Amino acid sequence: MTRTLNDSLAHAEPGSQVTLQGWVHRRRELASVTFLVLRDRTGLAQVVVAPGTPVPPEETTVEVTGTATANPQAPGGVEVTAPTITLLTEPAETPPVELWRPTLDTSLPTLLDHAPVTWRHPAQRARWELAAASLRGFRATLDAAGFTEVQSPKFVESATESGSNVFEVDYFGRPAYLAQSPQFYKQQLVGVFERVYEVGPVFRAEPHDTVRHLAEYVSLDVELGFVRDHRDVLAVLRDVVAGMADGVRRWAAAAIKRLGVEVPVVPEEIPVIGFADALRLVGAPEDEPDLAPEHEREIGAWAKAEHGSDLVAVEGYPMAKRPFYTHPWSRDDAAAPPRPTGHAGWSNSFDLLFRGLELVTGGQRLHRPGDYDAALRARGEDPADYAAYLQAFRHGMPPHGGFAIGLERWTARLVEAANVREVTLFPRDLHRLTP
Amino acid sequence: MTRTLNDSLAHAEPGSQVTLQGWVHRRRELASVTFLVLRDRTGLAQVVVAPGTPVPPEETTVEVTGTATANPQAPGGVEVTAPTITLLTEPAETPPVELWRPTLDTSLPTLLDHAPVTWRHPAQRARWELAAASLRGFRATLDAAGFTEVQSPKFVESATESGSNVFEVDYFGRPAYLAQSPQFYKQQLVGVFERVYEVGPVFRAEPHDTVRHLAEYVSLDVELGFVRDHRDVLAVLRDVVAGMADGVRRWAAAAIKRLGVEVPVVPEEIPVIGFADALRLVGAPEDEPDLAPEHEREIGAWAKAEHGSDLVAVEGYPMAKRPFYTHPWSRDDAAAPPRPTGHAGWSNSFDLLFRGLELVTGGQRLHRPGDYDAALRARGEDPADYAAYLQAFRHGMPPHGGFAIGLERWTARLVEAANVREVTLFPRDLHRLTP
Repeated sequence: MTRTLNDSLAHAEPGSQVTLQGWVHRRRELASVTFLVLRDRTGLAQVVVAPGTPVPPEETTVEVTGTATANPQAPGGVEVTAPTITLLTEPAETPPVELWRPTLDTSLPTLLDHAPVTWRHPAQRARWELAAASLRGFRATLDAAGFTEVQSPKFVESATESGSNVFEVDYFGRPAYLAQSPQFYKQQLVGVFERVYEVGPVFRAEPHDTVRHLAEYVSLDVELGFVRDHRDVLAVLRDVVAGMADGVRRWAAAAIKRLGVEVPVVPEEIPVIGFADALRLVGAPEDEPDLAPEHEREIGAWAKAEHGSDLVAVEGYPMAKRPFYTHPWSRDDAAAPPRPTGHAGWSNSFDLLFRGLELVTGGQRLHRPGDYDAALRARGEDPADYAAYLQAFRHGMPPHGGFAIGLERWTARLVEAANVREVTLFPRDLHRLTP
Repeated sequence: MTRTLNDSLAHAEPGSQVTLQGWVHRRRELASVTFLVLRDRTGLAQVVVAPGTPVPPEETTVEVTGTATANPQAPGGVEVTAPTITLLTEPAETPPVELWRPTLDTSLPTLLDHAPVTWRHPAQRARWELAAASLRGFRATLDAAGFTEVQSPKFVESATESGSNVFEVDYFGRPAYLAQSPQFYKQQLVGVFERVYEVGPVFRAEPHDTVRHLAEYVSLDVELGFVRDHRDVLAVLRDVVAGMADGVRRWAAAAIKRLGVEVPVVPEEIPVIGFADALRLVGAPEDEPDLAPEHEREIGAWAKAEHGSDLVAVEGYPMAKRPFYTHPWSRDDAAAPPRPTGHAGWSNSFDLLFRGLELVTGGQRLHRPGDYDAALRARGEDPADYAAYLQAFRHGMPPHGGFAIGLERWTARLVEAANVREVTLFPRDLHRLTP
């Protein structure tokens, strides 16, 4: 037998025999007829069953062989009549939520506790389809721009390399740590490939219990060499976000439609506001070292009103709030859009806000070995503790920079989910290690 | 200024000013002239420097502005003369190995200890280019075949889920474990998407100290639903390996040439030999439960001689050597090629050998909840310990199967590296956690 996928049933010749496979999405017993709605990866199909014929319970996997019959009321205009239904497994237990209802109306704990089943709901599944299409758009953009995909190790020797809140592992009897980011490795690999990217899990042991933090998330990391400053990095970020939006439009059109998602139109140039100007805009004191979430929302609203853009970059964050490898402010061209008023103490770094929420952090990094030694010593650290990392710089590195996008935050903003857990297949946090 | 990449220098108009950026690959001081060979991500370029002009040490990053000048002896037929050389960083320290020599002749410890620098050698770098192109081919094949990319969690709650040799993590004060594979998650997600794949790190705490084991490696995982048996899985594996080989040919042509790699031609159908027949072929006792590495080499040689194929699948391994979720042997069609003589005790599983080395393990899995309960109990395990995993099956799963390819093993066979560490960017093993 050749399987007909549900979305191809519309093209079946009326009167021909077809075989479908999938899940019993819904049983509907009417007075004179029973409908079996079958779900497969491509969509739904309607099967007409004679009254009194037993139909397996919802979610049971079945094979249905029958006659393709025109019916304008059926999905795609064709349904299956006179079916033979073969069970492919035991009759399924009743699902924890009714998957056939148009919307998945359930509490977050139920959604997460029963993730292997709740992800089957077409609306929930559509959320991940957006994430998968975004990953595809991300890679397609970078592959076309001369980037090389890399895979860096998740076990690292030193906790200092990754900051303080790291997970400790028993590594063959000695301590090791899980990488908080591929930062050090992607920089070293700029020395090899010039332009690299990585998609992979990162691990954060901060005991945050918020709607936007996870103990493990998918980081989309990019790093590139031979930049003038962070604006070159921002230009690549612009293309990457545009590529992710295009990916969604191209490969997840059905999911967009189902969820009513408004995919952002990414302008040719993302509006940039200097950190000091951003503080002024939101009326914050000029010595504030960072932007609060409500400030980010205000700046997002400003970008939408002023520039018609869902995206806005804030550049020139204070050095004190950025990691030691951050490059200090170096731009002095008067032609640049609004920029910090002072140079000392500002950095060549940026955050990208998407609809008023921080989505990306990036910037230019130091690349001279002497600057690394000085930056580490200024923070009371010993460069010798970073010897493995610093060898790349001692042996010649170009000016470079990069950024990291959190996949879950991107998807959450796209579908306007209140909590990143709603768009994570199997979230891990302070309290949750299962399913 | 607009940067000219080295591989575009050949197209520069003779006499025009060009600006190159890269690493000083080599300084060659002759009696009458000094050559600076510049390396960037696209290749090498020759710069002619007046005698006596200082040239920065090898590996220093520089910007070179000069005149494009035809010279049949130069790479691409064009070199740069009358250059201005600007250092982009401090003069580089002498590299641990001479990166400009055509072959990287060094010991494995030196190669690995100085990985951030040794990967810069064009021959070493070419090895990773093959890996990256393979990943691209892997995804392109599956994207085109209706698969959805997924990202599963690396933290798992239970050690039993992953087998015995797992890494333990301090997870906010309680124990968690690192996933040995995405097996359980990719199966659950077949219930959602039917066809899924994942590329990501897996963690193995077996204290192996061999040329083919790592504590962390990149696993290319695939799982698909609505299969008849493992032969349907093998057909997808065939297309995936062919897609990886095509990816290498398409996106790593320069690396193939540099390394003299023979990319396998994947036959339309991979030859299959039954496990019992394989034992007979190599003259092993018929009650052997597994194939030894020398047996695999013999079977690889047989496939090459008999079928002209670098790839051969061995099917029907004894159930006793396979995980509890393995589906027992179910084929009884007389038309099938050589197959195990007995059914009881054999499995619907296979290994794929690539040039005589195990590259892939795969097969059909159980899908009926009752079969899982029985299989676990038969191994002395309590199904309740697997409740989160088993809920997918209780709520309806299709017949399904899948496989996992180890990226490092694939690349190692491709370049005929004796040790998987030679093709891993930053390997992690019993002894090594750095760089």
